[in-house]
Amino acid sequence: MNRPNAPLKPLDEAWADLLLQAVPLQGTEKVTTFDADGRVLAQNCISALQVPPQDNSAMDGYAVRCADVTAVGVALPITLPVSQRIAAGSAGDPLLPGSAARIFTGAPVPAGADAVLMQEDCEALASATEGDGLGQVRLNAVPKRGQWIRSAGEDITRGAVVLSAGTRLTPAELGLAASIGLHQLQVARRPRVALFSTGDELVMPGEVPPEQMRPGAIYNSNRFFLRAMLLRLGCEVTDFGIVPDRRAATIDALRQASSAHDLILTSGGVSVGEEDHIKPAVETLGTLDLWQIAMKPGKPFAYGRIGTAHFMGLPGNPVSSFLTFALLVRPFVLRLQGVEDVAPQSIAARADFTWPKADKRREFLRVRHNAAGGLDLFNNQSSGVLTSAAWGDGVVDNPAGQTIASGDTVRFISFAELLS
Amino acid sequence: MNRPNAPLKPLDEAWADLLLQAVPLQGTEKVTTFDADGRVLAQNCISALQVPPQDNSAMDGYAVRCADVTAVGVALPITLPVSQRIAAGSAGDPLLPGSAARIFTGAPVPAGADAVLMQEDCEALASATEGDGLGQVRLNAVPKRGQWIRSAGEDITRGAVVLSAGTRLTPAELGLAASIGLHQLQVARRPRVALFSTGDELVMPGEVPPEQMRPGAIYNSNRFFLRAMLLRLGCEVTDFGIVPDRRAATIDALRQASSAHDLILTSGGVSVGEEDHIKPAVETLGTLDLWQIAMKPGKPFAYGRIGTAHFMGLPGNPVSSFLTFALLVRPFVLRLQGVEDVAPQSIAARADFTWPKADKRREFLRVRHNAAGGLDLFNNQSSGVLTSAAWGDGVVDNPAGQTIASGDTVRFISFAELLS
Repeated sequence: MNRPNAPLKPLDEAWADLLLQAVPLQGTEKVTTFDADGRVLAQNCISALQVPPQDNSAMDGYAVRCADVTAVGVALPITLPVSQRIAAGSAGDPLLPGSAARIFTGAPVPAGADAVLMQEDCEALASATEGDGLGQVRLNAVPKRGQWIRSAGEDITRGAVVLSAGTRLTPAELGLAASIGLHQLQVARRPRVALFSTGDELVMPGEVPPEQMRPGAIYNSNRFFLRAMLLRLGCEVTDFGIVPDRRAATIDALRQASSAHDLILTSGGVSVGEEDHIKPAVETLGTLDLWQIAMKPGKPFAYGRIGTAHFMGLPGNPVSSFLTFALLVRPFVLRLQGVEDVAPQSIAARADFTWPKADKRREFLRVRHNAAGGLDLFNNQSSGVLTSAAWGDGVVDNPAGQTIASGDTVRFISFAELLS
Repeated sequence: MNRPNAPLKPLDEAWADLLLQAVPLQGTEKVTTFDADGRVLAQNCISALQVPPQDNSAMDGYAVRCADVTAVGVALPITLPVSQRIAAGSAGDPLLPGSAARIFTGAPVPAGADAVLMQEDCEALASATEGDGLGQVRLNAVPKRGQWIRSAGEDITRGAVVLSAGTRLTPAELGLAASIGLHQLQVARRPRVALFSTGDELVMPGEVPPEQMRPGAIYNSNRFFLRAMLLRLGCEVTDFGIVPDRRAATIDALRQASSAHDLILTSGGVSVGEEDHIKPAVETLGTLDLWQIAMKPGKPFAYGRIGTAHFMGLPGNPVSSFLTFALLVRPFVLRLQGVEDVAPQSIAARADFTWPKADKRREFLRVRHNAAGGLDLFNNQSSGVLTSAAWGDGVVDNPAGQTIASGDTVRFISFAELLS
């Protein structure tokens, strides 16, 4: 019944072992660029055009030939006839020497012009008898060659790989893909995830009001955030609800889930207690390794296979479940979609708190930025309730055996990052 | 035709002026907690129960009475009969003096017990003739009073406001709401946003292949990221496409949009050029202020009203449009839903680049964290293309008139934050 103390598995080792298993899924699909936010590119996006397509004006103003203004003997202000008017979307004629072209932001710079003077440096003269009825313009500044001209191809050259396969698309990338004319994109298919909760103590919110909860019962909360996090990662989620605490029923549910899903995710039932039915059920159908990860919260974790489906078992405590998802499942699910760089990014920040008691496990402390730019610690680091995760804006990744003094530089990982 | 140089409006002033107009929308709706991710709470969530509901075990192990172990003359190891077995979800009987209860994580601690010994500190003895057929347990450690017991209400006390109205819900908050039994939540209704693009030069991707683009034409990219960013903020988006460059048609489209939307958003058509039809069209129906904001990229910006609808006009350059959305529209849309704290959070970071040329406007430089934890600068800060925004993981918020030397501490705002 008892077991020897299992050696703790370092988080980095667990991470590496898991990613070895996360072979990108077969299968892609074509979606419109409008609907590709959050999806992972399965193609390189190669530009068939230049951006900008031709030299164009970066300002509203006047296109000129510098030589007309800088010629020997010429002094400011200079008045030139306006020979044409070039709006965005139209093409101008070659600029005649000794004339200026009225030009607007984004409009192509006419042949012969080599600078744009912004209109704030000019004065339009309404004389309609000069300059083809477009009047004249008085230039109050000397243009520099190339000034306010965006060169053709300056932003994107023809043939350039603008976005690479494996890129997780955000709004900026949708815009970038659209800017080179792509209205559809080939993306990785959505991972299909089956979600189970285990535990006789779990009650679904809405089924029993708080005042009628039987002793020992608690509301299932993990299902809510796990589903939401999976959806944010682009997964299709099948929620199998709470698994009955009977071996045969559990085996049936797992078998059913394994045939149509890429990943089976459970919370609860992976500690070494006798009441956990998940382990023998998974082992009846496939393989399972129980890990004791050297992280806090979040020690127990399980990885296995049932047929072609991956199996991941998270601890049942809400904060443990939340953090093991963020640190282990999230990178796994992104890698399944072909994302290469899945490591959550930590940045340096200043602790405005003390953490006098070192732990033998690597700790993830829930913290929040204060007005002074430092980090405050949530006053209850219990793994039993999500208050800390809701209050915080991220976690401090604190190495095993380390205390923290106020003013220390620590590693911070933001929830905005872990939940995106 | 020309205008005097308009004074530049500081970004903070533009921000404050806008938020003054952003009166939270009337109207809420009830959604299931499962579907509330990203929505804004329109109610306080008050707990009708305690979490945990009663004292419970934080470990798999044995519940004991400390007095049995610490009594005078008692020495380790101590063997006690196991008098009961308490699983999560069940309720135990009072613990008899001189006995131990097998207990599992989450199970209620029986009356009389005042500590839990984790099973790693115990040894089960299989003698079935003792302890009601549950055998005996040898305790190899001395428990401390309260050890491995989570106290009732330690995480959430009855009557506590667990989440406040105005909170923007993330997965952790869904879990927290579920943990106190809430299966439905009252949230602010989705803002209804009408999206327009302007500009004769714009072509929709898919309509014309790159090699057939006429001179001066560019693909509309703003529509793609603006729509995606609005959806991320919980908006309902009606995409009106590219507005025809004719006054009457523009007025018709704006009038139609204003009756059924809370916000009309355009990109392009707000600079002072003569080709911009938006300003007179909006002024025919309502009011419009054109601002020259002291930010770079992103100078031109318009705010107005048409009936009850807000009108916001973004610059047409993609990066300008992207950043003015992130810095001005995003907080506005969140405030419409009742979020109080809408300021994007900047954090201190180290510049691993130089920026030798100060600008008179506050600049938002596209940067990315490097492996050394510093920030690298994108080599092309042109506002014409989104490559910089796709490459970067955020912006440096650089004050007007300021240069940056390598190693300087700068203010960084992450895209993960600005896009969430």
